[in-house]
Amino acid sequence: MKIEAVDFFYLSMPVVRDIGDGSQDALLVRVTSDTGLVGWGECEAAPLASIAAWCCPMSHSACKPVSASVLGQRVDSAADIRRITALVRGNSLDLLQADHTLSGIDIALWDLLGKKEAAPVYALLGVKKAFPKTAYASQLFGDDPAETFAKGERATAAGIKAAKFGWGPYGRGTVEQDAEQVRAARAGLGPDGILLIDAGTVFGDDVAAAAARLPALQEAGVVWFEEPFVSGAIASYARLAAMGGSVKMAGGEGCHDPHQGINMIDHAGLGFVQIDTGRIGGITSAKVVADHAVKKNVRFVNHTFTTHLALSASLQPYAGVESDWICEYPFEPAALAAEFTTSRLEPDAEGRIHVPERPGLGVEPDTRALAKYLVDVEIKVAGKVLFRTASL
Amino acid sequence: MKIEAVDFFYLSMPVVRDIGDGSQDALLVRVTSDTGLVGWGECEAAPLASIAAWCCPMSHSACKPVSASVLGQRVDSAADIRRITALVRGNSLDLLQADHTLSGIDIALWDLLGKKEAAPVYALLGVKKAFPKTAYASQLFGDDPAETFAKGERATAAGIKAAKFGWGPYGRGTVEQDAEQVRAARAGLGPDGILLIDAGTVFGDDVAAAAARLPALQEAGVVWFEEPFVSGAIASYARLAAMGGSVKMAGGEGCHDPHQGINMIDHAGLGFVQIDTGRIGGITSAKVVADHAVKKNVRFVNHTFTTHLALSASLQPYAGVESDWICEYPFEPAALAAEFTTSRLEPDAEGRIHVPERPGLGVEPDTRALAKYLVDVEIKVAGKVLFRTASL
Repeated sequence: MKIEAVDFFYLSMPVVRDIGDGSQDALLVRVTSDTGLVGWGECEAAPLASIAAWCCPMSHSACKPVSASVLGQRVDSAADIRRITALVRGNSLDLLQADHTLSGIDIALWDLLGKKEAAPVYALLGVKKAFPKTAYASQLFGDDPAETFAKGERATAAGIKAAKFGWGPYGRGTVEQDAEQVRAARAGLGPDGILLIDAGTVFGDDVAAAAARLPALQEAGVVWFEEPFVSGAIASYARLAAMGGSVKMAGGEGCHDPHQGINMIDHAGLGFVQIDTGRIGGITSAKVVADHAVKKNVRFVNHTFTTHLALSASLQPYAGVESDWICEYPFEPAALAAEFTTSRLEPDAEGRIHVPERPGLGVEPDTRALAKYLVDVEIKVAGKVLFRTASL
Repeated sequence: MKIEAVDFFYLSMPVVRDIGDGSQDALLVRVTSDTGLVGWGECEAAPLASIAAWCCPMSHSACKPVSASVLGQRVDSAADIRRITALVRGNSLDLLQADHTLSGIDIALWDLLGKKEAAPVYALLGVKKAFPKTAYASQLFGDDPAETFAKGERATAAGIKAAKFGWGPYGRGTVEQDAEQVRAARAGLGPDGILLIDAGTVFGDDVAAAAARLPALQEAGVVWFEEPFVSGAIASYARLAAMGGSVKMAGGEGCHDPHQGINMIDHAGLGFVQIDTGRIGGITSAKVVADHAVKKNVRFVNHTFTTHLALSASLQPYAGVESDWICEYPFEPAALAAEFTTSRLEPDAEGRIHVPERPGLGVEPDTRALAKYLVDVEIKVAGKVLFRTASL
């Protein structure tokens, strides 16, 4: 097949609120081949900037728009997709946003190839058997402990075995206020629920501030403490990890190329490396990190707060690793994300998510439902239209 | 002062060629305060994507346009500029391109504050005395050894004591072809010239391919081997560094936040860390890396291939460190970059560059000369104009 067209659809809730809910907009990517077959993918966050990285004029030989390395390429095998990734990375070396743009395209290419081969993506990656993952309900902290408690109860009532609470007020008040939030989460979830806490990078690289939260986390039996620091703050992660005891460090969602994920595995003392296929460069790049995590005995886990298209994509890179046992599961998505696909990946009776066995990603965007969220974009440079939203 | 307006000017050569010359376009940033005082800065590469990161709609609380953290802020001190950097980094955490956009703004804010305080930027950074740096002529390899030889001769004839050759055919042919290029560079430069070689990330993370080039580099007395690998490939750098002998590793120009620079210093075995103030988040972020480099006894060096505005900005973070003795000096810029400023930083009789002692960056864009390179940009989202080029 030859890549004939790549279209980007900026989708947004009518009102985007100033909260840590990344499911309020989306950038859907459609790759159309010359055979008429279509693959779908998604880039995480900031749709307009990722569109600009697709269509911008060339700055120099290593700063080309992503389109220069994608349009017209042949996609007949997994090796072709890896070759396109390498092309984008070389030709768009100095275009920072390119990695996010590539992510959605790469996901769509795997979906496309899977449909052509009538095989799920994980099989194209060389994986014989996909293992189900224990879903954790990914949620924001409540504004107060009572709301957090109610959210914990709701997750347990839904048959979910694990829950994560993050962002919101956590790390913005006192150590004791944070401890109350964590205790409320544990109480709501019940004694047997797997409890995860996400600081949403609130401590920057301040080890002392993060360390002050550890006793409450240890007491509540928290499995991981996620993103106390920004992705690159490796030295801070390593120092906190040494004090963590039963609480493991989790991080890595900000990584936008495999090297960054590998560096966090090698030097940050992580128990869990969290990779977003919508940011790291797609399934191709996430698989590189997943393979490295196996070698270094660090648990790989997806990062996905949004749609079930993104969810399926995020599961493929580590579907074959039985010991990578847990997955993030969007639990309170905005309507846009909830309506995104025509089918959903529902937890089984044990609260586990199964990677679809259908061709490609095994989920399709619900283009009819999404039409109402479509935002028109037009970009003109030197009087020439470089991008205009296509019809969905 | 209060930040009243930030304007971005996309400047480009009429024809951008598919070569490794990053001076063919530029993104000039103008920050205007409520006192009428103006500061200027520059973002490296891909102007359209950086403009989009300035004006895009919010995706969620940690994915806001850069404008949300800048417009209306007070700038009365160095601490204010550092506060704005932290704001942008928190509010635009998931907007990858934001770091490049921030870079030009941060540079303009230091220029602005310097003008207000009638002090050079380095002094605002707490540096008592600025030390001159030995300029190295930064050039592309010739298409063949004869052209490279001529370029070496030209640099020496211009009174420059050091020269770097990079990109072009290097690493794309055989080991012997690369060795011929390096020998030609040495012959052109003469036996006393300081010779630097830049592989332009051509080896990806392939240590064996890069190591095969080491004997020719050692034989030619090359001081550093730059970017054999992409910025994040820390493990590959460390392995090659161990084999380098007299040839030190240089890298880091791709770093877009201080943590990445720190990680390369801590784990990549670098002799020289190369930071581009137009990418890493500006002077504020580059200074953090420069300070860390001093602690770890790694030499900091600027990365600047383009204008003398960018050159001045890139020198400020390490102006006060006498042992950081060398600086990149644009030697064959495109006309746009050559005409960029009303004054230039010329090498002295010993081939050294002095950081300007004038207020701010000490150089001003030549707006009259630049007008002919201005490219109009218009970005519309949902029928609303989010960006339109202002008048220069």
